[in-house]
Amino acid sequence: MQKLGLLGGGQLGKMLLQAAMDLDIHVKSLDPDPDAPCAKIAPEFVVGSFLDFDTVYQFGQDCDVITIEIENVNLEALKKLQAEGKKVFPQPEVLEIIQDKRIQKQFYQDNNLPTSDFILTDSIEDIKQNIDFLPAFNKLGKGGYDGRGVQKLSSEADISLAFTEPSLLEKAIDFDKEIAVIVARNEHGEIKTFPTVECVFHPVHNLVEYLFAPAEVSTQIHDEACKIAIETAAKLGIVGLLAVEMFLTKDGQILINEVAPRTHNSGHHTIRANHTSQFEQHLRAVLGLPLGDTTAHSKAAMVNLLGEDGFTGEAKYQGMEESLSISGVYPFLYGKKITKPFRKMGHITVVDEDLESLKAKVSKVKETLKVVA
Amino acid sequence: MQKLGLLGGGQLGKMLLQAAMDLDIHVKSLDPDPDAPCAKIAPEFVVGSFLDFDTVYQFGQDCDVITIEIENVNLEALKKLQAEGKKVFPQPEVLEIIQDKRIQKQFYQDNNLPTSDFILTDSIEDIKQNIDFLPAFNKLGKGGYDGRGVQKLSSEADISLAFTEPSLLEKAIDFDKEIAVIVARNEHGEIKTFPTVECVFHPVHNLVEYLFAPAEVSTQIHDEACKIAIETAAKLGIVGLLAVEMFLTKDGQILINEVAPRTHNSGHHTIRANHTSQFEQHLRAVLGLPLGDTTAHSKAAMVNLLGEDGFTGEAKYQGMEESLSISGVYPFLYGKKITKPFRKMGHITVVDEDLESLKAKVSKVKETLKVVA
Repeated sequence: MQKLGLLGGGQLGKMLLQAAMDLDIHVKSLDPDPDAPCAKIAPEFVVGSFLDFDTVYQFGQDCDVITIEIENVNLEALKKLQAEGKKVFPQPEVLEIIQDKRIQKQFYQDNNLPTSDFILTDSIEDIKQNIDFLPAFNKLGKGGYDGRGVQKLSSEADISLAFTEPSLLEKAIDFDKEIAVIVARNEHGEIKTFPTVECVFHPVHNLVEYLFAPAEVSTQIHDEACKIAIETAAKLGIVGLLAVEMFLTKDGQILINEVAPRTHNSGHHTIRANHTSQFEQHLRAVLGLPLGDTTAHSKAAMVNLLGEDGFTGEAKYQGMEESLSISGVYPFLYGKKITKPFRKMGHITVVDEDLESLKAKVSKVKETLKVVA
Repeated sequence: MQKLGLLGGGQLGKMLLQAAMDLDIHVKSLDPDPDAPCAKIAPEFVVGSFLDFDTVYQFGQDCDVITIEIENVNLEALKKLQAEGKKVFPQPEVLEIIQDKRIQKQFYQDNNLPTSDFILTDSIEDIKQNIDFLPAFNKLGKGGYDGRGVQKLSSEADISLAFTEPSLLEKAIDFDKEIAVIVARNEHGEIKTFPTVECVFHPVHNLVEYLFAPAEVSTQIHDEACKIAIETAAKLGIVGLLAVEMFLTKDGQILINEVAPRTHNSGHHTIRANHTSQFEQHLRAVLGLPLGDTTAHSKAAMVNLLGEDGFTGEAKYQGMEESLSISGVYPFLYGKKITKPFRKMGHITVVDEDLESLKAKVSKVKETLKVVA
């Protein structure tokens, strides 16, 4: 069996490891945190920075395939490993496009992929000159993650909140729903999508708060969303998973918001609700194996389990027993030692064939299960 | 979170570990083989014999709950740990009944649980005196496992095959099907069954060869099988999982064949086909948590992946890519380094809503995927 190098050892890595165990795939994980979720369960775990050239280059030496669970990694090292014959999936040249939201956005435009209007800005001055473009989202080109690096600018009064580094202004969309499609592509060009899901974001923290799968949209919208995801993956030529987040506008248009070249928060429910999970699919894709059946066998919802506001310290879980007593409720804990306000500490998948009952269980479990210190 | 000690580090342990990761349960596994399936992925792994008093007693010292993945363990050490206040689930007194097939059989009789007629035998002489009881299965009281310790005696001519140690003669049943129900019970007395499954045994090696879930039986038979499983678990007072293997006779009677006080080969498909897997259910049961929903969301079949006859040495897998290209086929490899003829090296779960297509895929994958050296 091939040896898979994984840059990152967080929760996405943990779930990937669990899936890798099914096929006895030897995974070696790299993370700067010796207490990262992958640390205790990875067949091999290396403490080090995935941003450091030497660390990443050395780490990849004895791997057959190298992949990621976070896109903010040292691309130069990956390029060198690739040039020396290692398989690096997703490819560094694809990561380069996606890592910088400015290049990513330009890519959509150049490839006729539907996305909202935007303006690239290099300074506050550039933003000031485009006041008439507001309301817009100001997005940092590089380094944003999990809700950081995105700032809404409603009017001129918000200018002080704008980023001073190279960023972009993206027209605020009057959308009906935010939807997402995860698509997988292997090196033989085989492509498969997961069913479209519907994301409800936290109004303040810009994190996925709830997710419903499948999305309550028409078959036509579902098909169109999948088609856009497939085209994006094919045009990027990505090998691996691509999570495509989209806006469904009030007049029925679908616009790409942004993409992630990896397993994604909008696919965690697939572990419990689809025949093949996004984690297994990512492994199949990067290892050159046939892709699995993505059909959903159950209706599902997913809620992120965030650290309670006001608590920092060693994580404790309140209401676990009560949550587990609700039929169809499956908490998943990332195993992070320390909780902080709004830190992603886990997620909860709820399965239920009745949509109303599903929604009621989601509300119930959200009130019940808390991460405190 | 509680620390769970696990006696054994084989494939059942591996799948239990994967499930434990969902709730970030810290598992420490004990196995004599430093290359056991659990070795590389257990948060803590101790090399040592689960049959040795001192090893087991020491191993249990820092655990909150101790459980098993193999029933052939040192009971004296478990009793001492229990007496000293540790939770040991399943309880050593239950293991004692089940470890010895003679006591187990007597238990069914004493508790009016349906089982085939039997005679306890201490020597070949005892067997010779009961020639008119043949055809029967001669089962070793202690130490049998995975098809060993069971011998069919069709007539007097087979006497030389009989066991010389304390054993029993069990009337050979003219059965229609072999069915099984896995039942879970937690310390609060909550009990839940998985749907009845149908097992097809290998004619020579006495191992589960195929399994279909759910069993093709009437609702009445299903309900009756579940009722027997629940009664058996309740009368044993077991905390944990109990796999109840039964015969469905040609005249519609259900008779208990034997039980296993743990996760079982007849429940591997639950990982892919039921909302809660047998492994998660075992964890919930022994940790005193509410039991999960056992509903099957998909029809499934399971085939054991045995080492090919004629091959001994470092395991290689033939036909993996072709197998994965069949929709709904999910191989699971145990990660055993060395293959031997008929050694359990993995299993394959197949899911398909159409029973004919399911059977066709099972045949196809059985021809395709091979473990050689």
